[in-house]
Amino acid sequence: MTKSYKEDVAAVDKRVGALFKAAPKTMTPYSQLVKAASADGALDSKVKELMALSISVAIRCDDCIVFHLRAALNHGASREEVIETISVAIEMGGGPSVVYGGRAFAALEELS
Amino acid sequence: MTKSYKEDVAAVDKRVGALFKAAPKTMTPYSQLVKAASADGALDSKVKELMALSISVAIRCDDCIVFHLRAALNHGASREEVIETISVAIEMGGGPSVVYGGRAFAALEELS
Amino acid sequence: MTKSYKEDVAAVDKRVGALFKAAPKTMTPYSQLVKAASADGALDSKVKELMALSISVAIRCDDCIVFHLRAALNHGASREEVIETISVAIEMGGGPSVVYGGRAFAALEELS
Amino acid sequence: MTKSYKEDVAAVDKRVGALFKAAPKTMTPYSQLVKAASADGALDSKVKELMALSISVAIRCDDCIVFHLRAALNHGASREEVIETISVAIEMGGGPSVVYGGRAFAALEELS
Amino acid sequence: MTKSYKEDVAAVDKRVGALFKAAPKTMTPYSQLVKAASADGALDSKVKELMALSISVAIRCDDCIVFHLRAALNHGASREEVIETISVAIEMGGGPSVVYGGRAFAALEELS
Amino acid sequence: MTKSYKEDVAAVDKRVGALFKAAPKTMTPYSQLVKAASADGALDSKVKELMALSISVAIRCDDCIVFHLRAALNHGASREEVIETISVAIEMGGGPSVVYGGRAFAALEELS
Repeated sequence: MTKSYKEDVAAVDKRVGALFKAAPKTMTPYSQLVKAASADGALDSKVKELMALSISVAIRCDDCIVFHLRAALNHGASREEVIETISVAIEMGGGPSVVYGGRAFAALEELS
Repeated sequence: MTKSYKEDVAAVDKRVGALFKAAPKTMTPYSQLVKAASADGALDSKVKELMALSISVAIRCDDCIVFHLRAALNHGASREEVIETISVAIEMGGGPSVVYGGRAFAALEELS
Repeated sequence: MTKSYKEDVAAVDKRVGALFKAAPKTMTPYSQLVKAASADGALDSKVKELMALSISVAIRCDDCIVFHLRAALNHGASREEVIETISVAIEMGGGPSVVYGGRAFAALEELS
Repeated sequence: MTKSYKEDVAAVDKRVGALFKAAPKTMTPYSQLVKAASADGALDSKVKELMALSISVAIRCDDCIVFHLRAALNHGASREEVIETISVAIEMGGGPSVVYGGRAFAALEELS
Repeated sequence: MTKSYKEDVAAVDKRVGALFKAAPKTMTPYSQLVKAASADGALDSKVKELMALSISVAIRCDDCIVFHLRAALNHGASREEVIETISVAIEMGGGPSVVYGGRAFAALEELS
Repeated sequence: MTKSYKEDVAAVDKRVGALFKAAPKTMTPYSQLVKAASADGALDSKVKELMALSISVAIRCDDCIVFHLRAALNHGASREEVIETISVAIEMGGGPSVVYGGRAFAALEELS
């Protein structure tokens, strides 16, 4: 993770885009899975992206954090909702979620 | 995990209760952390428990699944909301989340 | 995990089948992803199922172990190939992979 | 995990013993690694087994918990030392370490 | 992780400090939990920080490694004790713990 | 992870080499374990290194990815075999394996 989260998320987009072209048979159904799982339903997309963010922090996945944070913000997540999402991850992940939550929060401050 | 999720969650309660008595200095602030992280706020408690459930499935934690599923149901989560929560975990966890999502769904059918 | 791995894998099938019916929009593309990822290609299906088994042991996923072990055996994996797969998982996972490798090996002895 | 941790650890011993016979080329150096890593040194074996137990709880590995708990007790670990070890795991693992710490504590009560 | 571990740990401090200000209701009890879990008791604080370091290596958490390595050194941990801690993590984590143990060792050489 | 994977893998070599000198009693049997687990057998070394790569992606270990990717390429793995290996990891790891698979693929493009 660099000092600029916008650059990080752009790098993720570029790498995943390249992988998509190289492995379309796997990545096409994966994209459909993502679309189905994150669509508005009983829970709206914003909540689902925050959920994905909470998992990202809990499992310590830098690239996932910036990716799903951006998606949550694009769906209208507020600063406070992101902070509460990080708090749930800390409940479920302890110290490692504190340090990765710190990364998510730093990204939030820059991206929003 | 046995065939009865009600017994599973009762066993979790019993074990965690015993640990609480044995390690009150650690468990008391942990309980306060849980209370703060799962309280109604910008996101309501139901969503937060579903988030904790999504993490539980993604990290493959049986005891966590039954614990947070019960909490989500107690906060009024619907069957469909639980299923969509499992779907987000599958997006974030692939095959292992499918099999643990299967466990969560089986528990849902019994607990609800 | 019970004493009978055949019962375990039957229980996985049942739980995942029920989840499939409850969440078809997510599970249908997931199934297509699995089909694409495990199809014969530059690597054959047997090797891919052994790979999935090595991951299953390394991440300590009981249900995944029995599921992918059965698939590998169905694609003609030999006893020795399964044992070497467990060995790679141990290289990558240390002690926890030894104990879960022990579970995989016990399942192998019963299933084959 | 059954109701009897003694049976659990006996089952681990049996499974790992069978794997050792099936994969001696991998398991022999692994055993030497374990011997070297857990020998008395700047830190004594008891502390090292408690460390292994803390990792076992943090990564949610049932079989590892009973195995390293027994080893720690065999090296003279006290009840209070085990409880403090579980507390460090909770600091590092949050809720999932609480429920697996609860399993470790239940095993402690039975094994000691 | 940059080439300078002192900068890394300073960055962790800064990010966690900012998160603390943003989420005081969650972070305050978490801090109390840390204080309780890492206090001198049946095991001394040095051993507990080494334990937290062993978990950090085993779960591959860069920020956790530099944080708990510094804490262990501040509590008087010797070079040899840190190396033995890394060895226990390798026993429990295999190859990934070797490469993250390599990071912890490089940090040790710089921080001490 | 920097922009150059050759520099990344060189840094891994350097760090692990330094750890080997500092902890020879643990690292010597670990090396023997690696040699045994990755030797030609019922499965050839190329497949075993691809297996180790699939685990590396699934568990999100950057240093492991470049290390085992290089080893797989040195054993003659083709571009397509690496891509299919990443696909199996995605089946088993979902979104986080997509982003780490993207890293593995970017390294492949540079290293090959």
